[in-house]
Amino acid sequence: MIGSGKPIFHSPFSILFMTLSEYRLLHQRIQPYIHRTPVMTSRLLDEISGTQTFFKCENFQRMGAFKMRGATNALLNLTDGQRANGVVAHSSGNFAQAVALAAREMGIKAYIVMPNTATAVKKQAVLDYGAEVIESLPTPEDRQAHADRISHEKGVPFLHPSNNMDVILGQGTAAIELLDDYPDLEVVITPVGGGGLLAGASLAVHLMAPQAITIAGEPMEADDAYRSLQSGKIESNATANTIADGLRTHLGHHNFPIIQQHVSEIIRVTEAEIIEAMRLIWERMKIVVEPSSAVAFAALLQEKSRFQGKRIGMILTGGNVDVTALPFG
Amino acid sequence: MIGSGKPIFHSPFSILFMTLSEYRLLHQRIQPYIHRTPVMTSRLLDEISGTQTFFKCENFQRMGAFKMRGATNALLNLTDGQRANGVVAHSSGNFAQAVALAAREMGIKAYIVMPNTATAVKKQAVLDYGAEVIESLPTPEDRQAHADRISHEKGVPFLHPSNNMDVILGQGTAAIELLDDYPDLEVVITPVGGGGLLAGASLAVHLMAPQAITIAGEPMEADDAYRSLQSGKIESNATANTIADGLRTHLGHHNFPIIQQHVSEIIRVTEAEIIEAMRLIWERMKIVVEPSSAVAFAALLQEKSRFQGKRIGMILTGGNVDVTALPFG
Repeated sequence: MIGSGKPIFHSPFSILFMTLSEYRLLHQRIQPYIHRTPVMTSRLLDEISGTQTFFKCENFQRMGAFKMRGATNALLNLTDGQRANGVVAHSSGNFAQAVALAAREMGIKAYIVMPNTATAVKKQAVLDYGAEVIESLPTPEDRQAHADRISHEKGVPFLHPSNNMDVILGQGTAAIELLDDYPDLEVVITPVGGGGLLAGASLAVHLMAPQAITIAGEPMEADDAYRSLQSGKIESNATANTIADGLRTHLGHHNFPIIQQHVSEIIRVTEAEIIEAMRLIWERMKIVVEPSSAVAFAALLQEKSRFQGKRIGMILTGGNVDVTALPFG
Repeated sequence: MIGSGKPIFHSPFSILFMTLSEYRLLHQRIQPYIHRTPVMTSRLLDEISGTQTFFKCENFQRMGAFKMRGATNALLNLTDGQRANGVVAHSSGNFAQAVALAAREMGIKAYIVMPNTATAVKKQAVLDYGAEVIESLPTPEDRQAHADRISHEKGVPFLHPSNNMDVILGQGTAAIELLDDYPDLEVVITPVGGGGLLAGASLAVHLMAPQAITIAGEPMEADDAYRSLQSGKIESNATANTIADGLRTHLGHHNFPIIQQHVSEIIRVTEAEIIEAMRLIWERMKIVVEPSSAVAFAALLQEKSRFQGKRIGMILTGGNVDVTALPFG
């Protein structure tokens, strides 16, 4: 049975010694719940970047973002006992929808803590997936306090959106699929926010394509991951005035060591560069991506002189954007 | 050699007697110049429409629209002598880019008559493909007069964007691919503007899926095709105040008889319905489509009670839209 609740990995340390066949087993377990998203190419964007770029389109993933992978894997790795009463997560964005949808698919009750500033549309999406929404103040402390309280009161495990080993490994399966399709990539680029995708993807690159390097794009306005790699400890952002709303969070103790080990570089991009990259993807590739997705492409464009002629893999993370409030023109 | 200049069909009448193998031969000849576009599905949109809909994504076609098919076929069917000095076309939109790109691929000179009201971006796109742009007044009479003058002066054939047999047959190859992928469709829906795509697609449906019917969506604000089917003669629009700028033109004597023969019905949609359908496609499918593309989906939504449970094929015609001037919100 898929989702038997038998965890594949327990320890946060064992991940650094995980084998590819173990990682493929994990991928196989989540496949019934996720889409195998397409990889798109664009002659026009390749002309602009001077590279051959392969875009992994997680905007076409279920609920519109790669977060479905991590949420699914985290739920599958709970024991029946652990998940008997449900799970709790906090998120104002894609992880909220991902946990709600994955939980519904498995018949698990989901409690989602969302800031009271979240739009009605976002709340409704989570409710539509059958989850229970609990409002918090829009501060990290208050949302965590609510999640902890529910975890305690209801006896349900808390799932962190990025600093959770099962979530990290789930997110990285996007890179597994990309490398299965294009094994000879030289560079893989993702955005970095909480660090879950970046850590998981860098591990997949390490295991499947040791010839390749993993790079991240990060908004200049929320460059905590860049500073963390420099200082050797997890830094946070005093402010995070970036349009890339999925990338305002900071790294965690589970994903930071993996990123330190396997990520070559973090490239910081300006808000103008993010918007321009997003416009290029929309206009030339004809697909809807979130600002966070455009951060990775913006990083490539900024440093394109160094990547001339290279085969680049890029994870377009999601497509959940309010089309009535776009940053163009 | 592909593009030997040997025409497959000469007579406007023979098309009604064309066989499927002849049509497949034509399709095969244009394949090196076009993309085999993907067919996408969406659980969320299926829930909304109550159907199983298969979206043929011509927004991912080269230069961003199905027009590449017709332009390519028309150029391939010219003799070497006919195209020695080039070709001339008029269009303010996708057909201009399509002829320019297809001509460049075949080493043919292209003269494109564009209204002096066309945006700089559209003119630049045509120039970038290496065509020569000639400005006209923004009236059908003046643009035709310029095209006729160039045809005469330069000794080059004129290609009409929709009322040309080779163009019609080229456009219909989108439906051939859709039906190759999904042979058991029950309904195929396209938008109708000049009638080229609708005629070609209805012919493909007739030849490949006789169990299916072909239907068109048309803006209420430019409902000439609807009225033409009712009156039995080609009607035009006194005004055409529709956001679906690709659908403001009227039918022609080449495509009208085919449409009369093979199209079951034209469903008219309001501007609000077009914008809502377009928003749904952008938000749920995460793809960029033009308003004209959304007209077909708007028609399905308007009449969804009649299509419950049916397998629908829908041609999303293009994705060339100015993202700085969107109609949402």
